[in-house]
Amino acid sequence: MNMHQQPVRAKVRELTSATHSLVKVFRRALADGVTRDGWLCGEGPHFLEEALKPGSRAIVHSVLAATEAEEKYQALLAMLPAESELARIPDRIFRQIAGTRTPQGIAALVELPAFDLEALAASPNAILVIACGLQDPGNMGTIIRSADALGASAVIALAGTVNPFNPKAVRSCSGSIFRMPVFASQNPETVFKLLKDSGVRILGADSHSALAVSNADLRGPIGVLVGQEAAGLPPEISREADELLGIPIRAEADSLNAATAAGIFLYEVARQRRFQYQP
Amino acid sequence: MNMHQQPVRAKVRELTSATHSLVKVFRRALADGVTRDGWLCGEGPHFLEEALKPGSRAIVHSVLAATEAEEKYQALLAMLPAESELARIPDRIFRQIAGTRTPQGIAALVELPAFDLEALAASPNAILVIACGLQDPGNMGTIIRSADALGASAVIALAGTVNPFNPKAVRSCSGSIFRMPVFASQNPETVFKLLKDSGVRILGADSHSALAVSNADLRGPIGVLVGQEAAGLPPEISREADELLGIPIRAEADSLNAATAAGIFLYEVARQRRFQYQP
Repeated sequence: MNMHQQPVRAKVRELTSATHSLVKVFRRALADGVTRDGWLCGEGPHFLEEALKPGSRAIVHSVLAATEAEEKYQALLAMLPAESELARIPDRIFRQIAGTRTPQGIAALVELPAFDLEALAASPNAILVIACGLQDPGNMGTIIRSADALGASAVIALAGTVNPFNPKAVRSCSGSIFRMPVFASQNPETVFKLLKDSGVRILGADSHSALAVSNADLRGPIGVLVGQEAAGLPPEISREADELLGIPIRAEADSLNAATAAGIFLYEVARQRRFQYQP
Repeated sequence: MNMHQQPVRAKVRELTSATHSLVKVFRRALADGVTRDGWLCGEGPHFLEEALKPGSRAIVHSVLAATEAEEKYQALLAMLPAESELARIPDRIFRQIAGTRTPQGIAALVELPAFDLEALAASPNAILVIACGLQDPGNMGTIIRSADALGASAVIALAGTVNPFNPKAVRSCSGSIFRMPVFASQNPETVFKLLKDSGVRILGADSHSALAVSNADLRGPIGVLVGQEAAGLPPEISREADELLGIPIRAEADSLNAATAAGIFLYEVARQRRFQYQP
């Protein structure tokens, strides 16, 4: 232990055994990225930094710090709220439970607030991104990042879509998962019923559509369907769309990356709304 | 060997030794993604498929096929032009030289034509993407894919930028590297002089700029500077820009992914030009 550290407000505990219940919780959560209660777990200083930034809605509950990492991340650990707990563990135990090849000696367990999809869909300016079958966690994280930056209200992942709380998705989203309402593994029927009952117009991003996204009116409450990387939107999902809109591309080209296409779609929505983002 | 294969027009050679010169060329080229002569080398059927697609400007010179893969990829190998060579090698030698964990038993060596940057810059509709310091090969590949889809004339990577011919970049670009003029490791001074002498307006994608890309006139010959993922454009590069343009984002959000931002920029250029792509 280091005697020269900055004052830490969090409750400090010393854990020396790999069989301690908190260590076990972290071990399992680091593998899945999420606990049974839906808390998010991530390794490395960047995850914790993002969770503590202004605009983050995450509540940091527990932080695990390996002895050798504690000094390095002093300033970060000093930012922990008084209600959180900081558990110090020996380096070798951290290495044992870490999910990464080069563990950085710090991991955190955070709670995200429960969001109300019905309330979000009721806004006259709602922009709901609905991922349908997307498989790549990097693309999912990039879409959450774009949704956050371009003023979307929420990201909804339908069942069969990569988990947006997957550690790789979380790493790709640059902290947006802590700021954006994100719903995982949603039942398509329930989602479509809720959106239609709320008067949300459903638009499908479809590279085969002859109607250019730039020629459609994208104001008012909308849901934007984003399909699987190679196959696009499955027919049973396309059917739910009020309109299918495409981004016109060069005839010889193949397609756009799914996350890029979603980003362009959201940019076009924001452009038509004159980039007037709700706070 | 399989006696029931479809007719192969390529010249077939049987190689049995790992020390054969062609095997050595592949071994080195698979590690780097590119040979000393600038030929591109890639593993897996997808690379070869993309190189043989209509619109590809690649010339396929040599294909290495492991015995067990030959039957599986019969249809693909039958598409090889008569001028190319197909070298059959034992499975164990293929596994030895493959750069991937799960080798797919097929690799190809292709030549890309030499492109003339001066001629490309002279077009009154030139759209040149200039990557300045970008580090992630996946982002680089995604940008080349967007450039291809959204009608850019070329992608130029300045020295210090990730190699666009890096195998991971090539995998991310979905065959666009075979269709698009791409220039690696270019000297910044030479590039900027050439563009300015050709009357190309240089625009920087800069998230800090208050001038929205949607409010700028993006018609006429332009170069679009795309910076490093976290740091953006270095000052000595920003200085070269005639205008710095940003994509307006929500105040609390962090930033857009570099490839997404480049895709949005190119979409806005295409939108203003009414998606009239040159063939």
